[in-house]
Amino acid sequence: MGAKTPLVPVADARRMIVERMRVLEAETVPLEKALGRVLASDIVARISHPAADVSAMDGYAVRAADAAASSTLKIAGESAAGHPWSGEVKPGQAVRIFTGAYIPTGADSVVIQEDTTAGDGVVTINAAAVLGQHIRKAGQDFHAGDIGLRAPRRLTARDVGFIGAMNHGEVPVRRRPRVGIISTGDEIVMPGAPVKPGQLASANGPGLYAFAVAHGAEAHHFGIAPDNIDTLRAMLERAGEVDLLLTSGGVSVGDHDLMKQVLGDLGLDLAFHKIAMRPGKPLLFGAIKTAKGTAHVMGLPGNPVAAMICAIMFLGPALAAMQGLPGNAPALRTARLGAPMKANDVREDYIRGSLSTNDDGMLVATPFSRQDSSMVSALARADALIVRPPFAPAANPGDPVSVLPLD
Amino acid sequence: MGAKTPLVPVADARRMIVERMRVLEAETVPLEKALGRVLASDIVARISHPAADVSAMDGYAVRAADAAASSTLKIAGESAAGHPWSGEVKPGQAVRIFTGAYIPTGADSVVIQEDTTAGDGVVTINAAAVLGQHIRKAGQDFHAGDIGLRAPRRLTARDVGFIGAMNHGEVPVRRRPRVGIISTGDEIVMPGAPVKPGQLASANGPGLYAFAVAHGAEAHHFGIAPDNIDTLRAMLERAGEVDLLLTSGGVSVGDHDLMKQVLGDLGLDLAFHKIAMRPGKPLLFGAIKTAKGTAHVMGLPGNPVAAMICAIMFLGPALAAMQGLPGNAPALRTARLGAPMKANDVREDYIRGSLSTNDDGMLVATPFSRQDSSMVSALARADALIVRPPFAPAANPGDPVSVLPLD
Repeated sequence: MGAKTPLVPVADARRMIVERMRVLEAETVPLEKALGRVLASDIVARISHPAADVSAMDGYAVRAADAAASSTLKIAGESAAGHPWSGEVKPGQAVRIFTGAYIPTGADSVVIQEDTTAGDGVVTINAAAVLGQHIRKAGQDFHAGDIGLRAPRRLTARDVGFIGAMNHGEVPVRRRPRVGIISTGDEIVMPGAPVKPGQLASANGPGLYAFAVAHGAEAHHFGIAPDNIDTLRAMLERAGEVDLLLTSGGVSVGDHDLMKQVLGDLGLDLAFHKIAMRPGKPLLFGAIKTAKGTAHVMGLPGNPVAAMICAIMFLGPALAAMQGLPGNAPALRTARLGAPMKANDVREDYIRGSLSTNDDGMLVATPFSRQDSSMVSALARADALIVRPPFAPAANPGDPVSVLPLD
Repeated sequence: MGAKTPLVPVADARRMIVERMRVLEAETVPLEKALGRVLASDIVARISHPAADVSAMDGYAVRAADAAASSTLKIAGESAAGHPWSGEVKPGQAVRIFTGAYIPTGADSVVIQEDTTAGDGVVTINAAAVLGQHIRKAGQDFHAGDIGLRAPRRLTARDVGFIGAMNHGEVPVRRRPRVGIISTGDEIVMPGAPVKPGQLASANGPGLYAFAVAHGAEAHHFGIAPDNIDTLRAMLERAGEVDLLLTSGGVSVGDHDLMKQVLGDLGLDLAFHKIAMRPGKPLLFGAIKTAKGTAHVMGLPGNPVAAMICAIMFLGPALAAMQGLPGNAPALRTARLGAPMKANDVREDYIRGSLSTNDDGMLVATPFSRQDSSMVSALARADALIVRPPFAPAANPGDPVSVLPLD
C-alpha cells in the first residue's frame, strides 16, 4: 500500500470492482414507478395485441368479393373498439367499423370511410376493396406468452408503455443499491455553511450523491468527517447499513490521510490501492466487515475532479453491476483532435475538453488549455473527457482520439 | 376541424406549442435534490476556489532562491488543509505542507516530498525548486462573485458538485410542470386488470406518465375515461389542477371520438388539429378554461406508437419550455441508410429502426420491415426514428438520412 505499489491499469481496476459486486435482490414496483429501474426478470405478455383481427381505420368491414367499385352493400351492424359486433357479415352486407374494433366474422377487408358514400341503411363503395386491406392481424404486435422484454434492461418510457400493453401493472426490478457517502478533511464544510480561512465548501458530497442517484442508487450523505481517527471510525462503522460506502479524501500519501489507517482497523480486505489513471491515481477499493456483514468501500480521491472522473469510470459500472447490468466501461467515441497534445506517461489520462462538429460533420474534441485537476468549473463545463492510453505518442490537430462524451 | 383542414407541418406545430408555454415560477431546493432540475437563475460563487494560493502536492513550501539541489533547509512549521500556518517562511527555512494547504507567507514554491530527504528538524532538497511550482493560485478555479453557471441549464451531477464548491446549499430551479394524463376509450383497461373480449391494456397511461417524469414533470394519471360525454367532461374539468393536460384517443374522425366535442364544450381555444406527420396526424393542441384559469391541452392520438412519437416531438419541447429551456426539436444525427425506402408523401415520416456502426465507423440506420403504428413492441426495441421530410424521394442503402436516436 506504499507509494511504490505498482499502479493498477484502469481496465483491470474496473473489472476487479465489477467482479466483486453481487446482483441485488428483486423487488416489485408499480408500473408507473418503473422508469429507469433495471428489469429483474423477463416480461411475458399476458395478452395478445391485438387480441383478434382489428380494423386499422374507420370505415366498413366487407367481404372483398362483394365490394367492387360502385357496389352498394346493406349495413348489417356496427363494430366499435370495446364493443365487438357478434353477428356474421353475409354476402351483400357491410358492417360500420371503427379503428381498433374487431373485424366481424365473414368480413375480410375494410374500406375506409373516405372511399364510401353512406345512404339510408346502405353504403356505396367508391373504391374497390383489396382483400385483407386495413386489417391488423391478431398478435401482429405480440402474442400472449411471448417474451416482450428480456432482463436485465434499464427501462425507458417506451418500455413502460410496452409493459402496460402486455397487461402488467407491476414490474420486477432490482433493488436500488444503497450508497453511503462520507467526505473527509478538516478543511471541508457543507455547502452553504460559513467558510473560515483555510476551508472550502464540499463539491464531493453533493456531486457524488447526485451521481449515485443518477445511476439508480438510493444515496445517503453521512456528512463530513474531520481528520480525527475516532470520529472517522464511528462514521465508517455506519457502512453496515449500505451496500457500497464511498469516501472521498484521505487516500493519498500525506501524513494527514487517515482513511487507510481507519479502514485497516475495520479489517479492510483490499482489492487495490493506486491506479494508473490521471486524475484519480489514489483510488482505493476493498471491503470492510460490519455488524451487518460486509460493505464494499470505494475510497475516492479528495480532489473533486479526480473523484468525479473515478465515479464515471468505476462507480457507474459498480452500480450497474449491482443492478444486474454488465458493468461495462462507459462507451467511447472517436473524434478528431482540435489542438496538439503531448506524449503521455504511464497513467491513462482523462482530459477535460469541448466537443464540436467540423464542416465535414466530424466530431472534434479540443482539450481545455488548463487541466489542473482541482478545477471543478472546467469539469462542469466539459462536453467530454479525451482518453489517452498510457504512453500515447504526441498528437496533432486532426489526429483521431478517443472521447468519453459526458451526460 | 374537419377532415379537410390543412395539415400543419411538424416544425410549425412545435413552434406554436412552445410559444404558448409560460415559463413556470422558480422554487428553491436543497442542493442534493437539484439533479435534473433546470436552473432558474445564475449561480454566483460565494467564495473563491482556492481561497488563497495552495499547495497542489504533499511536500515542502520553500523560497525557490534557497532551494537549490542539495541545499538543506530548517523546518519552521507545518501547513495542512484546514490548518494554515500563520508564520512567515524566512530565508533558509521550509514549511512542511500538504495538498490543499495554504502557501505560507514568504514561500513561493513547493518541492514534492519524493524530491526531499527529511532529517531532524531539517529537510534536504534533492531536486532544485522551480519558482511557482506545485502552487494553485487563489481563484484559479473561480473567484467569489464569478457567475459559475448560467440559467437556464438542466443540472448534471458535475454541476451539483460545482454548485457545492461555490458554497451554495440550496439552488433556485423552475417548478416541475404538473401534467395530467387521461386515456380515453371503452376498450382500454388499466394494466394488470382483467381484459374482456374487445378490450386491451393501456400503453399510453403508463408510457406518457413515464415520459413526462423523465422530462422533469410531476405527472398525475387521472385514469381511463369511457366513451361517455359526462364522465369525460368531469375528468377534463380536473385539468384546472395541472399546467398541461394530456389526453390520448378520441381525436381522429370516427363517430366514437368524443374528445373534441367535450373540449369544445369546455371552451377549447384551438391552436391546431391534425399535423403533417406519420404516425401522429390527429394531434390536437389548444387550451381550455378551468375554474383555476387556463390549462394547455395536448390531444394525442390513441395509437400508442403515434402518442409516444408525438410526446418525443412535442411534449418534450413543451415541458422544456415550461422549465425555461428553449424547447428545441430533438437533435437529429446523420446516418447511412441500411435498406431501401420508398418516396414519401405529404406527411413527415418517423420510421422505427435499428442503429449500427459499419466498418468505416459510420452510423447505419435500418428501418424495421414492419412499420404498423400499432406495434408498441417495435417502438420499445427501436434504437432510433428515421425522419423523412415530406416528399422525400426514394432512397437506397448508403444514402444519408436523418435519425433521431432514442434514449
